Formats: sequence, structure tokens, C-alpha cells
Amino acid sequence: MRIAVDAMGGDKAPGVVVEGAIKASVEYDLEILLVGPQDIVKEHLNRYNPGKSKIQIIHASQSVLMDESPTDAVRKKRDSSMHVSAHLIKNGEADAMVTAGNTAAALAIARSILGKLKGVSRPAIAAIIPNTIDATIFLDVGANAGSCGPEHLLEFAMMGSIYSKLILGKDSPRVGLLSVGEEKTKGSFITLSAFPLLEQAPINFIGNVEGKDIVNGHADVVVCDGFVGNTVLKFAEGASGMFFEVIKAEINRSLRAKLGMLLAKPAFKAFSDKLDYERYGGAPILGIKGACLIGHGRSTAAAIKEAIRVSSDFVRHKVNSNIEESLEKIKDKILIDNNTDIN
Amino acid sequence: MRIAVDAMGGDKAPGVVVEGAIKASVEYDLEILLVGPQDIVKEHLNRYNPGKSKIQIIHASQSVLMDESPTDAVRKKRDSSMHVSAHLIKNGEADAMVTAGNTAAALAIARSILGKLKGVSRPAIAAIIPNTIDATIFLDVGANAGSCGPEHLLEFAMMGSIYSKLILGKDSPRVGLLSVGEEKTKGSFITLSAFPLLEQAPINFIGNVEGKDIVNGHADVVVCDGFVGNTVLKFAEGASGMFFEVIKAEINRSLRAKLGMLLAKPAFKAFSDKLDYERYGGAPILGIKGACLIGHGRSTAAAIKEAIRVSSDFVRHKVNSNIEESLEKIKDKILIDNNTDIN
Repeated sequence: MRIAVDAMGGDKAPGVVVEGAIKASVEYDLEILLVGPQDIVKEHLNRYNPGKSKIQIIHASQSVLMDESPTDAVRKKRDSSMHVSAHLIKNGEADAMVTAGNTAAALAIARSILGKLKGVSRPAIAAIIPNTIDATIFLDVGANAGSCGPEHLLEFAMMGSIYSKLILGKDSPRVGLLSVGEEKTKGSFITLSAFPLLEQAPINFIGNVEGKDIVNGHADVVVCDGFVGNTVLKFAEGASGMFFEVIKAEINRSLRAKLGMLLAKPAFKAFSDKLDYERYGGAPILGIKGACLIGHGRSTAAAIKEAIRVSSDFVRHKVNSNIEESLEKIKDKILIDNNTDIN
Repeated sequence: MRIAVDAMGGDKAPGVVVEGAIKASVEYDLEILLVGPQDIVKEHLNRYNPGKSKIQIIHASQSVLMDESPTDAVRKKRDSSMHVSAHLIKNGEADAMVTAGNTAAALAIARSILGKLKGVSRPAIAAIIPNTIDATIFLDVGANAGSCGPEHLLEFAMMGSIYSKLILGKDSPRVGLLSVGEEKTKGSFITLSAFPLLEQAPINFIGNVEGKDIVNGHADVVVCDGFVGNTVLKFAEGASGMFFEVIKAEINRSLRAKLGMLLAKPAFKAFSDKLDYERYGGAPILGIKGACLIGHGRSTAAAIKEAIRVSSDFVRHKVNSNIEESLEKIKDKILIDNNTDIN
């Protein structure tokens, strides 16, 4: 199997990307196509000693910036490492791609170059959120921030359930519909209309869930529109950053507190390992041809390695053909019964 | 000034409520009407030694349960402490009310008994979220979870800005519209339509903000519909609970970590004091006649005391007449210009 890795994606690229790629290649016996400016990537590759890894450099002269507009990334940077990675999949030279770069640009490039799976009207980005037990798949977190209809939430539910089953190994993933109360009658116009569709879907639908259920392990998959998902995700990042900033400032005020934290450090390390989202290999774009895993901009080499592993699992477990077959079935049954249009 | 306090609201009622009421009465020189079953409230009052407080018990034979449906609370429990508190305002016997009981029931009772302010189509619940500097007013967090139009977001922005100015003492509160990107062109159909309305409003509108800006101090007021607000708030509660559960478990595994935490305890105490939402006196329902402050179900006596203080500030600073006057002005100007209907 061959994985294209965007060597220029992420805040610490290409260093950590090259390092992660080497480790993944050795550990999981994968062929890696490292995509980026030949000279720069080569220099880093030599620095990390590729050893027995099976790595090839594919030249790409440009790279997409973290704050670049997706439209510009698609139209004006046709030789970017992200663009070239997607083309490798399209041309059959790679099976999947991994990038820790600009999420919106990766989505736009994946949509335009790879295209949507059969039966999918709206690809979605799924975030893997650590909970007290393992992890919850939370989607959509931003691919569809403008407007989602009930039929799109149904697609997200199906795709999330399949991902949870095939990649996280859940037997019968519990799928919850994010709303403002557990009762069937609580919600927005969109969630109220989505509820009966999810009830009829071939998934383990557990009904409405609330914000707290994204993290308490009561659901394996939580479905919402991209506006809500994106907001929750950005809030989570902001809040955890704020928490650590305030606690750090308080600890640094006193020698006693500093000493205490030194003693408690292993416990905090265990805590952060337990809630480490890097273990789950980044956020997949679900519903596009090929496989595209998006790592966090702050990805470490370990995170890149895991994203590469997950992308190979994605291909091996045939996530995409599962999605296509499942959507085929429900569209005949559920959406026609409910007179719902898929655009 | 007279404040009606629902003695039966909250997980630790009536004990902490009575204690908080006594403290508030003494410290802020306020008359308190403690509403609940005469015998029970009296017993608690004697236990806490009311001293120089000006407290009167108003009998109410029933109480609203934490999980009771709002409809039942409004229709079937007409002698509940919440109901009676609202009637005290309606009859001019109290200026404001405070409850740490069932939020949805309090909202329903306030809406039905007290009614909406002139010019307000949708009352909103505002949460006061601690940030790195002080606190952000975040609304609506659940009064309108079904559907909000652009004109409702405009009302929320105006009401939030007035509350921030009059109660939190901000000179020119920075009001942000919650969206999925800072650019004006990013958002849902509703936020995109709300943007020009907020631009024309007599507020310090800083444009779109994202989930992270609810906690990073970049905005004093963050406006969103009740579905998004409610989800973020419940996610925040769930996530912080999960965090503390996991870290506690890790610390309890090791004597060394326990000792460390003992040393670091004052720093953690300072941290939690800094982010203590109880300082801000609970969540106001904005847009109804009278003043209603909702405390958290887990409110301590200190939280009840602060909620009582804030409710008296609410009355003293004439939040309601400010809201009515401001909305009067914008409805003539903005909404007619933009052809927007207020229902």
C-alpha cells in the first residue's frame, strides 16, 4: 500500500512530518510518498536516517499556507504538496493521503480533485474526541458550515457509524443525534426532521444526545451540522488552552506549587496520554474518493505516524466501498419513503 | 428593594439558599422574600440565625423538580415556589427573582407570568462564561433552541451589550457574532443575514467570532442561536467534568502525585477562583418584564448571594428600560430598512 504524505503540512513541517513518515514506514511496512520540494524534503530525510523505510520523494514546488483561502489553494497553487498528493491518489499512484496542513484547503482540494463517493451529497470532516473510555466520532466539524438538511445528517450518521466500526473496532456503534434535550420532541427543525430518518437507518441509533455526550462515552458517534460541530471543536480548543494558561500562571507564582506539580507530573502525563487525540490519527474526510486524513497543525511525529497508520486501515478495511453500499441501500428505502431530496 | 428568592430551587435547597439569602440581605441591605413551604423554610431560617437580615417568608406549597417538564411546571404547579416568586414580581411585591432550580421551567414561568418586554420577540438566557481576563456574556444558551432568525440574533446582541455595560461595567462591550470563521462571508444563512443588522446596530460590533473567542477574552458578548449556545454550554460542563474525573483518577493512583497535589492545592484553588462563574451571579433571562436570575443547580450559598446582588443591580441599573428604549430605536431604523419581520 502507498500513502502520500504532505511533507509541507503543519506548523512543524517538514521536520516532524518526515520523521513520522519514516517511523510509520518502518513500523507498519508501508510505502510512503513524501510530497514537497525535492531539495528540502531530501535534506530532512537524510537528517533523520530513513534506514529500512520505503520512502520516495515526489516533487511539489509549492505549499499551501495555514491561513490561505481554500479557493486560492485549489485554483492558484496547482503544484502545492497538497494538490500533488491528491493527484497521486487520483492517478492510482497512492491509496491515501495524510496532511497536517490547512484543513479547509485540504477539504476543498479533496472535493475538487478526488470527488465525492457515489451516493454522498455532502462529505464531512469527522473529529475523533477522546472520552473517559476511548473516543467519540463527532461529525460534521466544518465541511458543511453553511446549511445541512436532515438527509445530510443521515449521511453523516451512516458514515460515522461505518468509521467507528471499521477503524475504531466498535461492534455496534451507538449513534446519537446532537440536540438540546434527550426527548424526541426537542431540537431544531433540522434535527426534528432528521430523527425519523436516523430511526430507520441500519445503525444503532440511540436518539438525541446533548453536548455533554460528546465527551462522556455515552455515544460512539455524535452527529450534527458543520456549524455546530465546528463551533464546539473550536470552543474546546480555546477552553483547554485557556485552562492551561491560567493554571500555569497560578503554579508559576509559587515555589511550593511548582514542587507539587513536579511530584504530580507523572499523573498529569498519564492524564494527557489518556486524552491524547493523536492516538486516533487525525480527522478523516468522509465521503470522498480515496482516503484523506487531516492531522492537527500542531501534529508531532507520533501524530503523523498514527495518521499514516489510520489512513492505511481506512484503505484496508474498505471504508469507502462500505459507505457507498450502505448509502445505496438507505437511499432506496428511507429517503424515498420519506420523500426527501438528496441534492 | 425587594428580591424574591426561590427557597426550593437547586440541588442543595433549601439549606444553601436560605444561607445565601441571609448573607445577601445583611451584606447588601436588601429585603428578601424567601419563597417556599412555610415550615421548612422557617426551620432552616432559624438554623442559620438570620440576625439583622430583612427576611420574610412567603408560603408556596409546591416545588418544581429539576427534571420536570416546563409545561407541567407552568400548568400543573401553580403554587410552586417558582410560580409564586414570579407572581410577587407581577403584583409589584418584589422587584426581581432568583432561582437555582430547573432552568427550562423558570424560563417558561417567567415568559408566561411576567411576559416579554416591549420590542422583544424572543427572550434569551445569557450565560456568563469566565475568560482569561474577566467574563464573556454568551447568549442565547437555550431559550430559543428551535429556530432563531437574524432579527433575533440582533435582539440578543443588543440585550447582551446592555447587560455587559450595566452589570459587568464594560464601557463599550465588544459584541461578536458566533460563526465558523472571522471573515464576513463565513457562516450559515442565518448568521450571514444577521451580520449587516449587527453592523448597523448601536453596539460595538467586532464582526464574526469563533468558538474559541467565547473564552479567550477577545469579545465581551458572543451571540448565537439557542441550539448552538445550549450545545456549547452542555459540552463545556461535560468536558470539564470529564477532565476532572480523569485527572483525579490518575492522581489517586500514586502517593507521590497525591502529595504533589497537596502542595499545589493553593494554586489550583486560585485557578478555580479565577474561573469561578459563581462570582457573576448566574444566568439572567433577558427580555422579560421584571428580573429573573437563574443560578446553577449546584449553587453554593455564595453563588445564591451573588445572584441576589446581581438581581438588585439589574433593577438598580434599569436594564429593562434600557433594553426597551434601545430596541425601540433600532426597530424603526434597522429592521424597516432591511425589510425584516419581527414576529
